[in-house]
Amino acid sequence: MNIVVQKFGGTSVANLDCMQKVLVNVRRELDKSNKLVVVLSAQSGVTNRLLALSKQYSPNPDQAELDSLVSTGEQVSVALFSMMCKDAGIKTRSVLGFQVPIVSNSNFTRARIESIDEKKMLAMLEEYDLLVVAGFQGVDEGGRITTLGRGGSDTSAVAIAAALKAEVCEIYTDVTGVFTTDPNLCSKAVKLDKISYDEMLEMASQGAKVLQIRSVEFAKKYNVAVHVRSTFCDEPGTMVTQEDKSMENILVSGIAYDKDQARVTLTDVEDRPGISAAIFSPIAEQGMLVDMIVQNPSKDGVTDITFTIPRADLKRTVQILEQNKANMGWKEILHDINVAKVSVIGVGMRNHSGVAAKAFQALSDANINIMMISTSEIKITVLLEEKFVELAVHTLHDTFHLDKR
Amino acid sequence: MNIVVQKFGGTSVANLDCMQKVLVNVRRELDKSNKLVVVLSAQSGVTNRLLALSKQYSPNPDQAELDSLVSTGEQVSVALFSMMCKDAGIKTRSVLGFQVPIVSNSNFTRARIESIDEKKMLAMLEEYDLLVVAGFQGVDEGGRITTLGRGGSDTSAVAIAAALKAEVCEIYTDVTGVFTTDPNLCSKAVKLDKISYDEMLEMASQGAKVLQIRSVEFAKKYNVAVHVRSTFCDEPGTMVTQEDKSMENILVSGIAYDKDQARVTLTDVEDRPGISAAIFSPIAEQGMLVDMIVQNPSKDGVTDITFTIPRADLKRTVQILEQNKANMGWKEILHDINVAKVSVIGVGMRNHSGVAAKAFQALSDANINIMMISTSEIKITVLLEEKFVELAVHTLHDTFHLDKR
Repeated sequence: MNIVVQKFGGTSVANLDCMQKVLVNVRRELDKSNKLVVVLSAQSGVTNRLLALSKQYSPNPDQAELDSLVSTGEQVSVALFSMMCKDAGIKTRSVLGFQVPIVSNSNFTRARIESIDEKKMLAMLEEYDLLVVAGFQGVDEGGRITTLGRGGSDTSAVAIAAALKAEVCEIYTDVTGVFTTDPNLCSKAVKLDKISYDEMLEMASQGAKVLQIRSVEFAKKYNVAVHVRSTFCDEPGTMVTQEDKSMENILVSGIAYDKDQARVTLTDVEDRPGISAAIFSPIAEQGMLVDMIVQNPSKDGVTDITFTIPRADLKRTVQILEQNKANMGWKEILHDINVAKVSVIGVGMRNHSGVAAKAFQALSDANINIMMISTSEIKITVLLEEKFVELAVHTLHDTFHLDKR
Repeated sequence: MNIVVQKFGGTSVANLDCMQKVLVNVRRELDKSNKLVVVLSAQSGVTNRLLALSKQYSPNPDQAELDSLVSTGEQVSVALFSMMCKDAGIKTRSVLGFQVPIVSNSNFTRARIESIDEKKMLAMLEEYDLLVVAGFQGVDEGGRITTLGRGGSDTSAVAIAAALKAEVCEIYTDVTGVFTTDPNLCSKAVKLDKISYDEMLEMASQGAKVLQIRSVEFAKKYNVAVHVRSTFCDEPGTMVTQEDKSMENILVSGIAYDKDQARVTLTDVEDRPGISAAIFSPIAEQGMLVDMIVQNPSKDGVTDITFTIPRADLKRTVQILEQNKANMGWKEILHDINVAKVSVIGVGMRNHSGVAAKAFQALSDANINIMMISTSEIKITVLLEEKFVELAVHTLHDTFHLDKR
C-alpha cells in the first residue's frame, strides 16, 4: 500500500474556499491512486478563541479540561472537510485521536506521542481511500484527551507517517518552504531545496516557525522525509531529510533570529562548586527554559553569570532568583529585554573552520556590538541589541552568499 | 454510595452567569455528601450554529461526520463547567461519551443507547465527587461518535441514572415543572406535583416539550424517578414516576396540543385487503411518522383514508403517494396544513367512562368542529382547525377543573 501523509495548517483550512483548495490537492494525490492520510489543524483563530473562552470561565484552567476543550477545534475541521470530500465522491472518514488511538503521555497541553495503533489505521485504509485525521490531539492511557502543544499537528503528521511507513510527509503551510532567512526581514532570502534534520532543528528552535521543533525530532528519529510546501501554489517546497554529502559542502544553510529574548545578569556571584545548579535548578523546576548561559572568569572569588530566557518568563525568573538569594549569594540582578539572538546555521561547519571568525568580523565591520556568544557543532549564536537584528541578518546573509545558493 | 444525577439544558449553561447558578445547585447537593453526576447540554444556540456551519460545507452532510461535529457543543460545555468546579475546590472531571463508554447503535443523529459501563463510572465516582458528563452523545461499537437526537441529553441523564441506580434523576430546565397545559397558551395552567410515565409520554408526544420522549420511555423501563424542575428557582418541580392509587382518582391530568400537523386525505380508495399496507409502508420506509389515521366505512367498494403527519413531511409524503399511485388506487389527494391536535390525558380514564363524551360536548358547546378523533386507554385526541387550538385548550382545561388540582 502506497501511503502519503499530508498536513494542512489552520490558514489552509480557514474557510470553505481554503478547504476547496485542499480538496484539489487531495484529489490530485488520489488520482495517482495512493492511499492518503490528511492531518488537519483547527481553522485559524479557533484555538485562540477557545483558549480565550476558557479564561472567561477559569483564571487558571485545569490542563486536562483545557485539552478536551481545545481539541474540539480539530474535531470541527476534520468533520467539515470529511463531509466535503464525501460529497465529492471520495471514500473517506474523519479520525479523532481516541479512535486510532494515538496514545500520548499525560502531560496535558504539551503531551508527547507514545504509540500509534498502525494496524488499526492500516485497516481503516483498506476500507477508505482517505483518512482525515485530527491533528494536535491524542489520548492518554486513561482515555483522556491530550494535546501536543502549539504546532502539534506537525508532530501528529510526522508520527503517523512514521507509524504507517509513508513515502513522504508533506507539510502544507502558507509559505512555499524553508528559507535561508526570514523573507519578511530580508528580501534576498531564497528558498532551500533541502535541509538536514539537524539544521532544521536549529532553524526552528531559533525562531523560524515553519515546523514544530518536536516534529523534526520525530522525523529525524524515524527517518521520515518531510516536504514543507505551500497550499496555495504548486511549486516544490523544501525537503527536510537526512544529511548527505552535498549538504556538507555548503558552509552555511541559513540565518535565524529570535526577538523573544530577555537577558539576566547576576553580579558578584560567589564562585564555588554547585553555584550553577543552585541558580538554575529552581528556574528549571518552574518549567522555564534558560537558553544561552555565560559565566565570566572569576576575579577575587566572585563572578558574573549572564543568561537569556523568553521575555514572558522574565518576571517570574527574577522572583525566583530573589526568593532563593540566600542559596545563590549574588549581589545584584540586572536585566534587559531589548536583546535578540541571531544564529548562523550549517552542517558544513562540522568540517570547516573559520565560520565563526568570519561572522564576527562581518558584524564588527557593520559596527554591531556582540553581547554574548554561544556555539554548537552546526551553529553560531550571538546576542545583540534588538535594534541591530535586521542589519545583522542582512550582513550575515551577504557574508555567506546565501542569495547565490 | 448515594448517587444523584442532574441534567442541565442549554439555557441553564448558556453563559458564565448561568453556569455559576448551576454551580450553586451542585454545591448544595454535594453538601449533603452525595456523589453527583451532572449531565450537560451544549450552550444554547451552539448546536444550531454547528448545524448551520455544516450546511455551508455540505448540502446534505454525512450523518456520522455531522454527529462528530455537533458533539463538540457538549464537549465544550463540560470542559468549561468542570474547570469552574475545580476552581471552586470540587474533586471533579469531565466525561465524554467515549470515555465511559456510553455505547449506542450506529443510527447517527438519532442513535439509541445500548449500554453504559457502570463499573467504569462507579470507579470514577470513587475518585471524584462530581462527574460532568457530556449529554446527547455516545459511541457506536466501532468507536465513532453518535448523537441521540434533539433533547438527547435527557435520555443520557436517565440512562446514566438507571445504570448507576441513582436515587433520583433531576432534569433542570427553564420551566418550573410539568403543567396541566402550556402556561403560555392558558394562564390558568397549574404545575403538577407528579405525573405517571404513561401520562408524561402522552404529554411529550403531543407536543409538551419539557422532556424528550425517549428519556421517559427509558425512565419507565428502568423505573427511574425523574424530577423536572427549574435551574433558576428553588421550588420543587414535577415528579415523573410510576402510577399509584392517588393518580387513578384523578380523571384528567393535562391537556396537550400540537400545531405541527398536516392532514392528508386519499379519496375513493379501493377497499381491499392490504390497501393500508400499500399506502403506509412506502411512507414509513422514508422514516416519516404518520400519526392519526381514520378510515371511513366503505361505500360502493371504495373508501376515504385520512391521516396526519408533521408539516415538514407533507411535500415528500405527497410525492411518495403520487409515485405509488398505481399500487394504491386512490382518486384524489387532498391536504391541509391549517390543522392542529388537542389531547386530553389522564390515567384515571382507564377506570372511568364518559370522559370522551364530556370533552366532545364541551367542544361542541364552544362551537368547535372536530375533524378527526383518536383515542387510547389514557388519551383522547381530536384534530381541529388550527385557529381553534387556544379556545379548545381553555375549554377543556375548565371542563375538567384542572386549575383546581
